[in-house]
Amino acid sequence: MKYLKIFLLLAAGAAILTAEESLAQKASKQRLEPIPADIQVLFSYINDENDPITDEKIALGKKLYFDPRLSKSGIISCNTCHNLALGGVDGVETSIGHLWTMNPNHLNAPTVYNSVFNKVQLWDGRSSHLEVQAQSPIQSEAEMAASSELVVARITSIPEYVEEFKKAYGKDVNITFEKIASVIGVFERTLVTPSPYDDFLNGNEKTLSKAQKEGFEVFLQKGCTKCHYGIALGGTMQQFQVAAKYRFIELGDFRGDKYGMVKTPTLRNIAETAPYFHNGQIWSLKDAIREMGSVQLGIKISDKEAVKMIEFMHSLTGRKQPITYPILPPSTSKTPKPDMN
Amino acid sequence: MKYLKIFLLLAAGAAILTAEESLAQKASKQRLEPIPADIQVLFSYINDENDPITDEKIALGKKLYFDPRLSKSGIISCNTCHNLALGGVDGVETSIGHLWTMNPNHLNAPTVYNSVFNKVQLWDGRSSHLEVQAQSPIQSEAEMAASSELVVARITSIPEYVEEFKKAYGKDVNITFEKIASVIGVFERTLVTPSPYDDFLNGNEKTLSKAQKEGFEVFLQKGCTKCHYGIALGGTMQQFQVAAKYRFIELGDFRGDKYGMVKTPTLRNIAETAPYFHNGQIWSLKDAIREMGSVQLGIKISDKEAVKMIEFMHSLTGRKQPITYPILPPSTSKTPKPDMN
Repeated sequence: MKYLKIFLLLAAGAAILTAEESLAQKASKQRLEPIPADIQVLFSYINDENDPITDEKIALGKKLYFDPRLSKSGIISCNTCHNLALGGVDGVETSIGHLWTMNPNHLNAPTVYNSVFNKVQLWDGRSSHLEVQAQSPIQSEAEMAASSELVVARITSIPEYVEEFKKAYGKDVNITFEKIASVIGVFERTLVTPSPYDDFLNGNEKTLSKAQKEGFEVFLQKGCTKCHYGIALGGTMQQFQVAAKYRFIELGDFRGDKYGMVKTPTLRNIAETAPYFHNGQIWSLKDAIREMGSVQLGIKISDKEAVKMIEFMHSLTGRKQPITYPILPPSTSKTPKPDMN
Repeated sequence: MKYLKIFLLLAAGAAILTAEESLAQKASKQRLEPIPADIQVLFSYINDENDPITDEKIALGKKLYFDPRLSKSGIISCNTCHNLALGGVDGVETSIGHLWTMNPNHLNAPTVYNSVFNKVQLWDGRSSHLEVQAQSPIQSEAEMAASSELVVARITSIPEYVEEFKKAYGKDVNITFEKIASVIGVFERTLVTPSPYDDFLNGNEKTLSKAQKEGFEVFLQKGCTKCHYGIALGGTMQQFQVAAKYRFIELGDFRGDKYGMVKTPTLRNIAETAPYFHNGQIWSLKDAIREMGSVQLGIKISDKEAVKMIEFMHSLTGRKQPITYPILPPSTSKTPKPDMN
């Protein structure tokens, strides 16, 4: 009797799957993948054997992520431009850094949420690992403007930080700049936001509304997944301006990597991360969708179709795990002072 | 038998109190008061009947406190300069605001923690309420540089915020700039940090080490409580440079209020809130203590005495309640854009 019940339950489950098979199967064929629902499987995706995730590293990496003393001035943290309260971005066209410097390439800050699923990091894809990416904005003159030596001197001057590095990496740890960036990367790996879209692809058909399913169909049908695929719905290098010229291309010097390739931004939490595109010139999701249709796919996407896709894109807004705002250890007399110049 | 036991316990308690009576009594005579241990009594201290504390207001005020969209640029929040991760301050000599502008008076950001216990707010004491104080940095050109109209337009363009204001103040709420600042003030009222010092004054003699008690004796004996008294150990207007000239007085234009009076900073969490004084020119607690002795009290405080007082001051480092970093509602097409100029 027990086994019969289980059999019937499984059969019912299969029936549900069959009913949605076409949409989910289409998605799968177009290389879309959900964030794994199984925590062990998810862990195997986000973990990096070069610097495996542990509770101690997450706690330390979180502190460093929020610590403005990683910048020359002492007032800009990773979270300033990749604000976990605001979808992992700063919500401005071009990020502002040290001395109120606008990013010289007029680049818009990509979201840190789910960045672990990107195959490459940074708009020109020059970092493949979050652990390496984190070094870049800290040192960039237009961002946090700190030398690696300054960062190491600041962190090692604070006994609580030294203690936490020992806890995380063993008592003989050598606290290098690379190590500091790496543990920030470990924290960033945990910033994944499963959404109704994932629940749907993981078999729960009820998580998408009728309108969202319609929008999903349009999204698949238009060919958006040529670039926006994988768990990240983006995060790989793609040719930009395949079919037409992007209307704001002249703004900023950014032209992609040496092959003119650009990292496709993730679509996860896209409804929270305006403005859009590498130079943040498009504020509305509708405009962004239509512009992409024209620039990348060479098609006209109607207003109505764009509205449907926006419905779908709202299903990509994910659940953020609660983050306790850290209490950072105080500086000491040995800590290099903030430098505002 | 039961009553005898209780009697003996009470007697033992009284004995402990008697042993420490002299120090605690001296403190009380010098107008020092602990943060009340009783939560009801504490609530009556921090609550303001003009805008009573509720859970809904704390939640909303917290979001606004962390929301950089309250600034003209969209990248500076209350928390930028009053960072809850860093003792409620920014850890720099002079706060940096819009366009990387240094505070024109070279003023150092005071801690927001326990600011509810200050009798007045701002260095010149021109605000008596946190609810009014919060208006000032938002509008200041050198700080967040937002007009009241801009702030109201940003907040009312975001439906989730409007909903939260209705929940907090009723469905007919008029979301004015004053209301926005006021609910931030309500959140700030809750940022109190009871410390070992309070536990000691509340009757638990074991919370202070021998060295801290010695330092406390020196602190009382030197007359620091002439200005640093009350729950805040500060927070009232006092004459500055009573006995001598402050050696960095020429830096910045600040000369106090129209009577030359200056708000005494709280000593709570002082070990976490360097640099010190209104223009942030003194980085070490020892220097600060000795300078105060000379400038305010006209006495020489020895190195040894200062070290003892530092021991005591560490007992003023309080327990911060865990704060979940908020997830802020996204902007809409109606939200006024960031303005970097």
